[in-house]
Amino acid sequence: MTSNWTRRAFGVATVALIAIAGCAGPGAKAPAGDPLPSWRDGPAKAAITDFVADVSREGSKSFVPKEERIAVFDNDGTLWAEQPLYFQFVFMLERVKAAAPRHPEWNDNPAYKALAAGDHAAAFANQKALFEVLLAADAGASVDEYDQLIRAWLAQARHPKTQRLYTEMVYQPQLELLNFLRSRGFKTFIVSGGSHEFMRPWSEAVYGIPPEQVVGSFTPLKFEPAGGQLKLVRQPGMEMNDGPTKPVGIYRQIGRRPILAVGNSDGDLQMLQFTTQGPGRRLAVIVHHDDAEREFAYDRKSHIGTLDKAWDEAVAKGWTLVSMKNDWTQIYPPVK
Amino acid sequence: MTSNWTRRAFGVATVALIAIAGCAGPGAKAPAGDPLPSWRDGPAKAAITDFVADVSREGSKSFVPKEERIAVFDNDGTLWAEQPLYFQFVFMLERVKAAAPRHPEWNDNPAYKALAAGDHAAAFANQKALFEVLLAADAGASVDEYDQLIRAWLAQARHPKTQRLYTEMVYQPQLELLNFLRSRGFKTFIVSGGSHEFMRPWSEAVYGIPPEQVVGSFTPLKFEPAGGQLKLVRQPGMEMNDGPTKPVGIYRQIGRRPILAVGNSDGDLQMLQFTTQGPGRRLAVIVHHDDAEREFAYDRKSHIGTLDKAWDEAVAKGWTLVSMKNDWTQIYPPVK
Repeated sequence: MTSNWTRRAFGVATVALIAIAGCAGPGAKAPAGDPLPSWRDGPAKAAITDFVADVSREGSKSFVPKEERIAVFDNDGTLWAEQPLYFQFVFMLERVKAAAPRHPEWNDNPAYKALAAGDHAAAFANQKALFEVLLAADAGASVDEYDQLIRAWLAQARHPKTQRLYTEMVYQPQLELLNFLRSRGFKTFIVSGGSHEFMRPWSEAVYGIPPEQVVGSFTPLKFEPAGGQLKLVRQPGMEMNDGPTKPVGIYRQIGRRPILAVGNSDGDLQMLQFTTQGPGRRLAVIVHHDDAEREFAYDRKSHIGTLDKAWDEAVAKGWTLVSMKNDWTQIYPPVK
Repeated sequence: MTSNWTRRAFGVATVALIAIAGCAGPGAKAPAGDPLPSWRDGPAKAAITDFVADVSREGSKSFVPKEERIAVFDNDGTLWAEQPLYFQFVFMLERVKAAAPRHPEWNDNPAYKALAAGDHAAAFANQKALFEVLLAADAGASVDEYDQLIRAWLAQARHPKTQRLYTEMVYQPQLELLNFLRSRGFKTFIVSGGSHEFMRPWSEAVYGIPPEQVVGSFTPLKFEPAGGQLKLVRQPGMEMNDGPTKPVGIYRQIGRRPILAVGNSDGDLQMLQFTTQGPGRRLAVIVHHDDAEREFAYDRKSHIGTLDKAWDEAVAKGWTLVSMKNDWTQIYPPVK
């Protein structure tokens, strides 16, 4: 197989992706009137549009040069859904199942035993054992082989509640916000606990965010001979980009302090702190999952996407809280 | 001190930088005629211009979509000079000198003892001991404090041979090449063994390469309380981006395989291999330091910038070799 993750940008999974992106996706012009039609008028929408106007209008006291208009977005729970289980984990658990016959030693791993018995809660209670299994499943694969596995999975796997493809579980209001920001000269980045490799195959088609603007957790790699070629080969392990390491990931990969950050959980707290600590006009936004009917209501007490410390700090510091129930007229984009 | 590496882009050192950038720097339009006026007509120039025409012309058999026109450049010895000592090392040795009073334990370090005695060769012979000292010098500083040290040093330190500022030791033909590539839709990246933090304060003003397109060696950081604020604090150590880890750095930060790579030494070999291994039209370029009069002639046998294995592979595979002596009509830009 000719090996190249560059040229696969329009491969197997992308057909489905393009379909939804057409609606308010990359490249689409904002409507002549309201650039955020799925955002209901209210304090959250006003905070965002005021901020963008303030920093992008020449002559404004809060004007920020175009190259410094850096906006960072968490992914899981901020740009797409994350319930009942991070979508990357759903994929990784399938990969564990596929790899199990090659790993008899897993029969002694308590998390694997729990998974095999269908007891996810028990598996997640032992995170160390769980990650050992998750991260070993495709160690030894090249990045190209792994990329193909991700694309093939995304092309057919469907969400248990909505029956949508996972890449159709993105939030329509956020697609509009990304477009709006770019139309005002912002450069938009993902800064996620998910891994680079899991997000990059579809981030450009779905969000209009190119691979080089995706910051994620990182699987260690070695450039070494494999099958008669030099390949980037995946090693066991994961350098996490979450909580206090999100500012580190931002410094490493972006090298500028963002002026706008959007998150939804305690894993985003330090990114929001880091963003708002800079001088001049800054905006921190938190998406609050309070819509049990159209999405999920969970964040104040959940093992996934907990919003506890970050909520307190948001209230104390006047950060912008977005109620999915009240501020968004629509959750997901229409499926074409 | 208000802490922010974003807003310092136009700080103290930048005045001098802008001056030279004006000549063929970022944003400058290529002249109506030849986009590479400092490149003498010959096989190297033809290989570059043919390649660029082939991949950027709609309808060409080798056409590459704009978003995949990724070009990567090594920095030391490729975009600017590196003799008699990597410029970042000159800076770091000054920092060692400044930090020495706080580190009495260095008196037992053989590399430090050699440095103190003025014996650079002996110091470099013991790289482990040397790096221990180099990387400890400003551990504990915040990234903002370190950024200021770099800017202050670059604003006044001068090269021992030319008496130029170090940021004036960039290669005029490469400034033209970077501009030419961007005018043809390429996105230009630095992929260097130097550190992110040392290159980013000036890469945008001098090369037109923004911080987020600089891939370098990485000083470990922690986001932690320091002086009543949360800061990114430098830790001892360095994750090197050199040789076999350059493809890893490219995957991590860019996430696409480049179609054009330019280097000058064995430290660039794997980046050149990785680039040329992809399908379709690819170009690998090596700058050969053979101009003792106008620059330095050293690369085939030098402890800095050795060009040995990469030379053999370039000859075997028909990569493009650039003779600084014959292919470049000018080395450095005029100082205004």
